[in-house]
Formats: sequence, structure tokens, C-alpha cells
Amino acid sequence: MLGSTYGTFTSDPRRARAVACGSLPAATVHGRAAAAGDLDVGGRPLYADVPDLDRFFHPESVAVIGASDAEGRPNTGITRRLLDWSERVGARLHPVHPTRDAVFGRPCVRSVGELSETVDLAVLLVGDPLPVVEELAEAKVKFAVAFAAGFAESGDAGAAEQERLAAAAGRAGVRLLGPNTNLNAFEEFRDDLEGPAIALITQSGHQGRPVFTLQELGVRLSHWAPTGNEADLETADFISYFAEQPEVGAIAAYVEGLKDGRAFLLAADRAARRGVPVVAVKVGRTETGARTAASHTGKLTGSDAVVDAAMRQFGVIRVDGLDELQDTAALLARARPPRSDGVVVYSISGGTGAHFADLATGAGLRLPTLSAAKQAELHDWIPHYLNVANPVDNGGHPVGDWRGRKIIDAILADPDVGVLICPITGPFPPMSDKLAEDLVAAAEETDKLVCVVWGSPVGTEAAYRQTLLGSSRVATFRTFANCIGAVRAYVDHHRFTSSYRSPFDEAPRTVSPSFRKAQALLEPGHRLSEHAAKQLLRAYGIRVPREQLVTSAAAAVRAAGLVGYPVVMKASGAGIAHKTELGLVRVGLTSASQVRDAYRDLTDIARYEGVGLDGVLVCQLVPVGVEMVVGVAPDPLFGPTVTVGLGGVLVEVLRDVAVRVPPFGEEEARRMVAALRGRALLDGVRGAAPADVDALVEVVLRVQRMALELGDSLAELDINPLVVLDRGQGAVALDALAVCH
Amino acid sequence: MLGSTYGTFTSDPRRARAVACGSLPAATVHGRAAAAGDLDVGGRPLYADVPDLDRFFHPESVAVIGASDAEGRPNTGITRRLLDWSERVGARLHPVHPTRDAVFGRPCVRSVGELSETVDLAVLLVGDPLPVVEELAEAKVKFAVAFAAGFAESGDAGAAEQERLAAAAGRAGVRLLGPNTNLNAFEEFRDDLEGPAIALITQSGHQGRPVFTLQELGVRLSHWAPTGNEADLETADFISYFAEQPEVGAIAAYVEGLKDGRAFLLAADRAARRGVPVVAVKVGRTETGARTAASHTGKLTGSDAVVDAAMRQFGVIRVDGLDELQDTAALLARARPPRSDGVVVYSISGGTGAHFADLATGAGLRLPTLSAAKQAELHDWIPHYLNVANPVDNGGHPVGDWRGRKIIDAILADPDVGVLICPITGPFPPMSDKLAEDLVAAAEETDKLVCVVWGSPVGTEAAYRQTLLGSSRVATFRTFANCIGAVRAYVDHHRFTSSYRSPFDEAPRTVSPSFRKAQALLEPGHRLSEHAAKQLLRAYGIRVPREQLVTSAAAAVRAAGLVGYPVVMKASGAGIAHKTELGLVRVGLTSASQVRDAYRDLTDIARYEGVGLDGVLVCQLVPVGVEMVVGVAPDPLFGPTVTVGLGGVLVEVLRDVAVRVPPFGEEEARRMVAALRGRALLDGVRGAAPADVDALVEVVLRVQRMALELGDSLAELDINPLVVLDRGQGAVALDALAVCH
Repeated sequence: MLGSTYGTFTSDPRRARAVACGSLPAATVHGRAAAAGDLDVGGRPLYADVPDLDRFFHPESVAVIGASDAEGRPNTGITRRLLDWSERVGARLHPVHPTRDAVFGRPCVRSVGELSETVDLAVLLVGDPLPVVEELAEAKVKFAVAFAAGFAESGDAGAAEQERLAAAAGRAGVRLLGPNTNLNAFEEFRDDLEGPAIALITQSGHQGRPVFTLQELGVRLSHWAPTGNEADLETADFISYFAEQPEVGAIAAYVEGLKDGRAFLLAADRAARRGVPVVAVKVGRTETGARTAASHTGKLTGSDAVVDAAMRQFGVIRVDGLDELQDTAALLARARPPRSDGVVVYSISGGTGAHFADLATGAGLRLPTLSAAKQAELHDWIPHYLNVANPVDNGGHPVGDWRGRKIIDAILADPDVGVLICPITGPFPPMSDKLAEDLVAAAEETDKLVCVVWGSPVGTEAAYRQTLLGSSRVATFRTFANCIGAVRAYVDHHRFTSSYRSPFDEAPRTVSPSFRKAQALLEPGHRLSEHAAKQLLRAYGIRVPREQLVTSAAAAVRAAGLVGYPVVMKASGAGIAHKTELGLVRVGLTSASQVRDAYRDLTDIARYEGVGLDGVLVCQLVPVGVEMVVGVAPDPLFGPTVTVGLGGVLVEVLRDVAVRVPPFGEEEARRMVAALRGRALLDGVRGAAPADVDALVEVVLRVQRMALELGDSLAELDINPLVVLDRGQGAVALDALAVCH
Repeated sequence: MLGSTYGTFTSDPRRARAVACGSLPAATVHGRAAAAGDLDVGGRPLYADVPDLDRFFHPESVAVIGASDAEGRPNTGITRRLLDWSERVGARLHPVHPTRDAVFGRPCVRSVGELSETVDLAVLLVGDPLPVVEELAEAKVKFAVAFAAGFAESGDAGAAEQERLAAAAGRAGVRLLGPNTNLNAFEEFRDDLEGPAIALITQSGHQGRPVFTLQELGVRLSHWAPTGNEADLETADFISYFAEQPEVGAIAAYVEGLKDGRAFLLAADRAARRGVPVVAVKVGRTETGARTAASHTGKLTGSDAVVDAAMRQFGVIRVDGLDELQDTAALLARARPPRSDGVVVYSISGGTGAHFADLATGAGLRLPTLSAAKQAELHDWIPHYLNVANPVDNGGHPVGDWRGRKIIDAILADPDVGVLICPITGPFPPMSDKLAEDLVAAAEETDKLVCVVWGSPVGTEAAYRQTLLGSSRVATFRTFANCIGAVRAYVDHHRFTSSYRSPFDEAPRTVSPSFRKAQALLEPGHRLSEHAAKQLLRAYGIRVPREQLVTSAAAAVRAAGLVGYPVVMKASGAGIAHKTELGLVRVGLTSASQVRDAYRDLTDIARYEGVGLDGVLVCQLVPVGVEMVVGVAPDPLFGPTVTVGLGGVLVEVLRDVAVRVPPFGEEEARRMVAALRGRALLDGVRGAAPADVDALVEVVLRVQRMALELGDSLAELDINPLVVLDRGQGAVALDALAVCH
């Protein structure tokens, strides 16, 4: 685990500037650990920028620019709320207004320059914050919050204005929140709640309200960052900062778009290293959502499949609804790590147990069958005719007396049980009140997770409001689905972080010997011929068929002799697409005369079709294998991504493709292959031998290396097909398409 | 629409017995409408049994067998509850006990025979209800409820006991609820609630409690049928009965297993004809769920994919959680049919609108872009910089004054809008209270659907409890997901019922000319040879290649001449599987000598491999097309089902297969094909011509006819591959497997 580190490096190397720097992380066992200032081979940062936001969230002095106490002005309400807040937290508040001498009885200065002290935070309640931000430099203000709207969310002109605002903040040395944000960072947080807290990040204030309201149900909240348009401070900054705060048990985020994909990954990596769960709603599953989100806070939502993969790679738990965000974040913030992933479902109704178990196993939770000894023990208190194997059905009556607690304790004592879930679908006070009390009492004495689903749609019952919500040790849900989703996230999160190795620590920092060879092959702005593209692959150690490029029939025959019969012949040229459809491929040629004929045919067709050739490829015939596609595709948020899919009809019709954002390691590459729906083809179907998955994974990693080293020079790469031979036989790139920038 | 009809035919023709019969439905336009007593060509009923349960739910007199007032006995509590209930509803209650003279001060008789009147209902609180049921015949009791457990849920012996109980009830002319049930049918229903009601069916009492509790949120409930083990009365009976009751707006069911698949389909058909929505949780998505459910009420859960298909075919809305069951049933019970499927999302936050719209479009709801004129109208009240295209973002302030209601009315006035959804994620009383009031007021004046999501996790706010829940015209939800799911079900339900044509009306009643031909080909207990299986297909008008079965090389050459070169040759024999793998197929033979050689090779290989041949098939070479599989597979609940899938790797690796339960019509067959993930292959990929989907659909329907007519005689049928040629060219069964019972 890394120690607490601070620094204010930005994630963009071009604007990297060291402002402050704390202790660096110790080297990890595997490779060299990333450190502040480190860049990967492509010049991208390997270390998260963690701004010191202590003074932002807890300023000692605040200037309110545009403060007002005039009746009916929106700024008046905001000023009043800030005044209340400053009194509550003990901050000094300074109204600033060009024409007022006092606001709400406080002396008001005309401009920032006249402030009597260096304030930590300036709240900008002005329509055009740009000139004010420029004044802040001289006043040495550390942080500013800009409320004004009409920036990137309103179109191109607004986006340009936002760029100017961000640049001004950079020049002024001010970290800016907003524009298009609000006061949520300065809400009143309850300080009477115990246990680890949720830190909240939202790109829309209203959308954070339900998580904030969780405090009324006893869940502690420590911070709320309403990031708005993110001209400067962005979601990633707050993730990194919150992951360092000891009181934060989980980070909940409502995200419409990401400003910088790399910064997000580095922040998620930082949270993963520290084991702090990040739960996020990310808008943009559909075109409608993406479009609407863009018009709200002016951010790109990115390709949803890529965002989804990136989040999963770095352990960010993605949920769809705000209710799931609340339930999952609350559970992950408060529950201790599981001692086992075994889940027992315990209920007062066989129907409830059957229903819950059905949904839970369907969602991938493990419900171990309890041992014969444990079942016998439970049958001491539960009638013999009831099923106690798991789910455990007590039939109702035992919960009403001393047996109720015995049963719960006996289940929790089982070493194969890490989680006990008790769904109470119907409130029936004679039973459910006592059951709730026993569950709370047991939860207070165990370090295992105890969950309750309170299924009544009413939710005003005392057993729910007082008993269950009164305990921070019981995780209480209102629906089966949210309980199951949260428990699944809990098990997954701890499994993920317990074996997490940061791919940034192992990301290449220096170019490989392949790089120089590859550079010589690139033709900026052009699409490479098949032959050149294959040479590029060869440079990175990816196997291609033995082949020669020839420009005469006689040379073709000589080449066939060297390559070895039978051969394949293909027309080669930078402009050729759909070779097979045009008849520009000949397979299985076994003699010199066939080769000569084929050469003539191919050049004739090319002439007829008007395609320019750089020659004809005479290639080794590769044995049959599983056809895959492996490639590099650019993403507007994350840069080059690596894709792998099953070839042929699977990729054509079903788009059975997995994508990952570099950097990732071998295990992630294996997960990528395992995620394909048609992966069984690689295991061998209908008696076929298993394919060489190791070789496939190796190709994926080598393609990633190409993507990292060549960066923007390589606009697109597609190996199609990559033939994966039988296990131990390797994989061969039969054809490739490469486009240079 | 059918008129109200009553009758007590059972769904099993072997035990069909007419007890009472009302008016029969009029013939529909298409084909002959099914009527009571009608059987399809396979002898299965075409008409739902609708028992007259009026006296069950509203008995005038009740006998309680095993009544008790002894302290501490479970029967005492039940007796007391029944007494309270009988007083409330004005029913006469008669305690029956072998040793008591009075129970709770009421005179008690020793046995059923001593009852002073013929009671409508006997409640059996005895450990062994069998002897009592036998006594009920003489007493002419119409209905009995058996509480005792230990029947089918406890294993084979209990299942046999349950069979005896059902038989006894049949002999006694008593309709029996249970065993293993409870008092839920005689709960206290609120009579102060308005509007159409939910009728509830549960196979586990506790699981029905949340739906029952909906009354506390203002949703009316009319009936609760806790069916338990369903020895006699089953879920289907209650669906049919509830669908006839005028006060019932929707039927909600919690189902662990189905007793009789056909009876369920007929009941669902009856509800679909009457436009009454049926919303159901059905346990058994997983093996664990199925096993646990079986040990709870002793019923088969069946293959989940088949159950799922059957429900969708007959318009039953399947949901996973009890919360979805509540929300969907409440909406469908109360909402009027939609005037348009267009949904507008209206919110006080752009973030909320973007998020909701993203999830709603992802779930398949249609969010039309509002017209320029409508947007201009909305901008009269909403600031110009806010997006009002749909989602409509009002920015918050307009809801606080007279504009709030104007906006809602303007949206509802749009003819392309059928549903207005207002997600209020955070309660903010200055805005959300007025917004809630305006939404309720508008909903009371429109016949369009108005939905609100109250996103606060607290749920005790006045705007929610009093304002929103106080109106039966606003559909109020707590989560985005449940609102979206329910609205999707609402749109789907009305689309489904508005075009519903009962497949039972068009199901074949008499055998086709194909049937006799087919019967001659069946070999009971055997697997047919490829040649015989293809003859079976031919009998049903399914095209097979021209082919001849020969037993000598000379005959093979003659056959090739008749079939036409090039030919395919295959070894034929009842015991041959994996012909291709064994080398028992030769493709593209173009001359007599090749045919002679192939004949020798095939018979040599067969001899070497020890496979018995009935000859060698000489077949026409069929042009290339899309390879499909079409078949008949038996299901324990529903009998023969029809399957269609994409051939080759898609069916081998991805199990891309759709299944339907007969009877179904052409449109359903088309939906079946459209449901395949790889359906794009049929449209033509990579420039291939579109395939003859009409011919494929025709084959599916002919296979269904085979399944219906041959019934159990045909244990299994697999056409693999069926080659679907280019559009207009038909489809040819290249190979088939048929197993006879």
C-alpha cells in the first residue's frame, strides 16, 4: 500500500508543473512503482495528480464576490446560505461588491484587491468570472468556485470562453471549481453519525441530493464536490483527494462526462491501491443520454463500451440508478472486508428464501450448501421438515423466542459464511420486530456482513426506522435487487483490491528495440500496404506467414520455392480493400505453373479493377486455426485502445469484441479473451483441439506495446484474421491493416 | 372481446367433466373461436376452465374443522382470526371439533355431517385432511381450504398423498385450495380505496405481503389467492376467474412452479383477450432457485427459457423482484390505455433529465423530440438557454409559480405524448412541493399517464406521502428503474392486447392429410434413418434435396443421373451420428466414376467403424445459403416446443436459439426468428443476398403442425442444417434427426 502523498502535477505532461510534492511511494515488488513526474513511453503520466483540497473544503476565510442582500436577487439567497455556513464552521466571510459598503451588516469591499487578508476561497457569484479570476492572482487566493452558466454546456463559443477561464485560473495559480456549479460543497453535514463516510462527487447538484439525504437514514457523509463543467478541478482530482482522507470509506460519483480519460484512470488507480471503493453512475449508455449530458455540463461522454471497460479495469463499480449508487456506496463504505465470499440467505419463509436465492445465484453470488453438522445444529431450533441447507428457512416461529438469536449466531459462526442476508418481505410485527432486533444485536458482535432487506413498500415501521436504520453495522436495503447488486459489488471490490497490481507500475517507460524498426516503416498520413503492415507486426515480434513481395511471375515462382509449397498469393497495394471479394487472393497453389497462372490472373484483375499494386505477395499456407481479430482503435477520451474479437461471422454479425484501455497486464488480457461470448471456440468445439490462448494473449500484449510506443503515429491497426493455432503452435497474423497519422 | 363466461371444465381432457356452463364466446373473425369442450388435433383443450369462485371469496357460511379455543394451540389463533373475519363480512361460522361442545362461545359440532346447513366453505385445520375431504361430499360443501403441510413439498411420499387428496376432492365435488396454504384469502381489504384493483395470487403467503401492503400507499386490492401446493385449484384457475371480475385492473402473481403448462397458457390467453394484464414473478431462473422452490411448494419450475417464452407469447409480464411486481401491477391496474407511446421526461434539473432519458431510451422507451412549435411554447415559461426538446429541463425556478402548471399542461397537450414522467431526485420543498401539487392536479384532468419518481431515500416527506400517494391518477415510483420498467410494460401490454389474436382460435382441430403419411413412417421407440426422417419432413411439405437411397455402386450411379450432377453422397442408417466427423459424407461428386468410388469408400468406412447401413444416399447438391436449425423438443410443463436457431458456430457455441410453445401463429414465428442474436445473417452480410425468411417461417410453422399432430409419438426432431436460400428460393432441409416415442 502506498503512503499518503500529495502533489499538484497535472495529468497532461505538456502542462506538467510541480507546485508541491510530498513523500513518494515506495517501489513495489513488481517492476518500478510509478512516481510523481514519471511518464510512460508515450509521454503520458503514470502518477495521479492529488491536489491538496483541505483548505477548499475547510477554508478559514472566504470572499464572496458579488455578495448581495437586495430583496429578490438570487445572489442574496446564496450569500445568506454562505453566511450561515461560515458561522457554523467558523470561517471568516468577506463580502465583495463594486457598489455596496455592507452586506447583511458586514463590511463589504469593492474588489478582491481590497481584501484585508489572503482568503482561502473565493465564491464567484458574477456573470463573467474571467476578469475576477485574473484579479485573484495578486490576492493569492488558493481556490475559487464559479457559479456562472453559459460555458461549454451552451456550445462552441461557451467552450472557448471556458478554455479562457481555465487558462486564466492556471496563470493565477488558482484551483477553480466550476463554472456551472453551486453551493453543495458547503452543505451542512451531520456530525453525529459514526463509521466510515461516503464522499460524494456530482456533475449535477440535484442528482447528488438523494445520496446527501442518506444522512437522514444514518449514513455518514463527509464531502460533496459538485464539479459542474470542470474547467479546472475535475472528478479525477476529487477521487484522488478523497481516497487519501481517513474518514472516507467509499466515494460515490454521478458522472455525465469525463474531462480527461487518463486522469480518471490514474485517480481510480490511486483509489484501488488504497482499497477505497469508487461507485459511479456514468450517463451515456445511449445516444440520447450522451447528447443530453453534453448539453448539460458540456462534456464528452465517450464511447460507452470503452468507459465501461476502463472502469472495470480499475475497479470502479458502475451502477445505473441513484438508488443503487446510494445502497452500494453505503454498504462499501461501512462493511469490513469479507472473511469469505459465501452468502447465506436466512428467512422466515421458504418462498422468500427460494426467490432470493434464485436471484442471488443468478447474479453470481456464491451460496454454499451448509455442512451436515451445521444443518443438524440449525435443526436443534428449526423444525426438521424445513430446508436449512441454504437458504435457511426457519418457518417463522423460532424467531419469536430465544432460538432466533441462536440461529443467527450459528450461521455467522460457519467459516464458509462471509455474508448473512435476511430478506423480510412482509412486516409482521410479532415476528419481524424481534428478528430485526436479533439481527442488529448479532451484527454488532460480528465482523461479518449482515444485510437485511426490508420489503415493505411503506417504510415507516419502527423495526425499519428505529431498529435497523439505527445500526451502522446492519446494511439495510429496500429491494432484493439492490441488496444483491451491492453485495456482489462488495465481494468483487475486495477480491479486486486484494490482488490489485497497478498496471502503471509496470507500464513501459522506455522504447523497445522494436520501436526504431517500426518507425522506419511508418508512412505519415498513409495507409500501409499489407506487406508493410505485416513488417510492422514482425517488428513487434508478432508472427506473420513467411512471404515475399514479387513483381514478376518468375520471381513469384522463385519465392514459392523459398516459402515452400503450397502457397497463397495475394495482390498487395496500399489502396486495396476487400481483396477476397475482388478475387485478389489465390489459396493452395501447389506448382510453379499454378503460381505463374495466379500471378497473371491477379495482375490482370488489378488492372481491370484499377487498383494500384506494389506487387504480389507469395505467402506460406498457414494451418487452420481459430480466426480472431486484434486491433488498436482510437478513443476520444482514452486515446488508443486495444480490441480483440472472434473473427468471421461472430465479429461481423454479433460484434463480439472486447476492448481495454492501456496500460493493462497479462491477467487483464486473459480476462479480455475470457469476456468474449464465443470464447468456447478457443477451448475447442466439436472435438477440435484447444487453441493457443497463451499466444493470443501474447499478441494482445505486443499490440498494446505498439499502441503505447507508436501513440498517435498509429491511427488504426487491425489484424484480421489472426489465426490462433492449436495449443503450443502459436498464432499467425494472416492479414493486417495499418493506418498512420 | 369475449363476454363473461363461466364453466368448470378442467384443462385435462381425460378428466374433462362439465359441471356448469354459461354462454359460449362468439366466433371471431379469424377462424373458429375456441369454445368450452373444444380440443385441438392433439387432444389438448382450447378453452380455459373458469371455476366460479364467487362463493369461495364471499362465502355465506363457513365450517372450521379443527376449530380450537385452547390456549397456546396454533389453531386457536387461526380460529379467532376466522371469527373476526366472519363477523366483519357477515358470514355464518360453524366450529367443528370431535371433542368440543363450544369454541369461543359458539356451539361446536362433532363432524361435518352434523352441520346445521350446507356451508360454502370448509377450512381444514387438521393434520390429515384426506378423511375430512371424503366427508365433505355428503355435506355438499363447495370449497375447502387445507392448511396441512407435508405433501408434495416434502418428497415422493408426500406427492403421492397429495394425489390421493386431489382425487378425493374430485370425487367429493369439492374445489380444494392447498394443501400447505393459509388464511390470506380472508384478509381484511380496505374498502375506501378507489379505482381498478390488483388481484393477487401467491404460492407463498409471505411473498404476497408487500403487494397486500400497497393498500397503505393507496393502491386498491380486491382478492388474494394463496394457492400453496395446488393439489386442485391452481394459479391458472385464479387468473381466469380474476380476469372476469369487473373490479380487477391487473393480476399480480408470485409463482414458484406451474402445475399444468397448458392450463396456464389458456388462463393467460383469457386474460389477454379481456385486456387484463398479468404481472408475475416466476422463480426458477437458476438451478438453485428451481431446487429450493420445489422443496417449498413441491412444484416443477420447468425450463426457464420455455417458461419465459410462454409468458411472453401470451402477454404475461414477467418481473424479477417483488418491488417491480408492486410497481408494475399498480401502474397497469390503474392507468388508462395510452394515446401514444411517446414519453416526455420533465425535470427541474438537466442532470436528472439526461440521466433518466439515458436509462429510458436504453430500455426501449420512445422519447420523441418535441416539435419546434412546442419547444417555442415551452420557452415562453422556461429560460431560452435550457433544453426543452425532451427531456424538458425547466431549470427549477418556473415550478415555483404559475408557470409550473402551464408547462405540464402544454406537454400533455402534445398529441405525440402519451406519458409524462417527472423524476424528482431530491426533495427540495420550495420547488418539489409545488411541483408535486401541479402534477397531481394535471393528472386528475388528463387521460394521459403522469408518472413521478420520488427519489428521496427517506419517503416520509409530505409531498410524497400526502400529495403524490393521495392521488390514484399519478403513478408514483421510488426508483428510475422501476418507473422505466413499469412504463415499458404498460406500453408493451397495450400494444400486445390491441393486436392480440388468440392462437387457440386458429389452432388445428383436425388432422392434415400429412398426418396419415407421417404415421406410416414412424417407428415407435426408434430413431429414424436420415432418409426416413426426411420423408417425414416431405410428408409435411418441407423441402428436402432430391435424393435416392441405394444399396449398390451401380444403383448409385443410376441415382446420380436421376438426381442430377454434381451430387452429395452420405451413408444412411438409423444408428449413425457425426457423419461428417467419420468421413461418411462426400460432397460435389461430378462423374459416375467419382460416385462409384465414393460408394465403395463410404461402405468401407462404415464396415470399418462397425456402423449398420440401410444404404447410401445420393442427393442433389443444394446451393449455398444460411444454415439454420429447426426442431421440436419436449418440455415437462408445456409438452412439445418448437425451436429455431442459427446453425454452425452460432448454435454450437452461443446457443443462439429461440423457443416457442405451440400453438402460435405466423407473426409469432416471425418474432421468433427476429429474436435471434445472429438474425443479421438472414438479412445478408458482406454483400450477401437476403435469405428467404418467409420460407424459414413456413418451415417453422410446418414443424409446429408436426409437433401438434404427432404429439408424443415424436419424441424429438432436429433439422440441422436447414439451408435458407436467397429470397424467393425457399429453404431445404439438408439433414434431419427424428426420434419416435
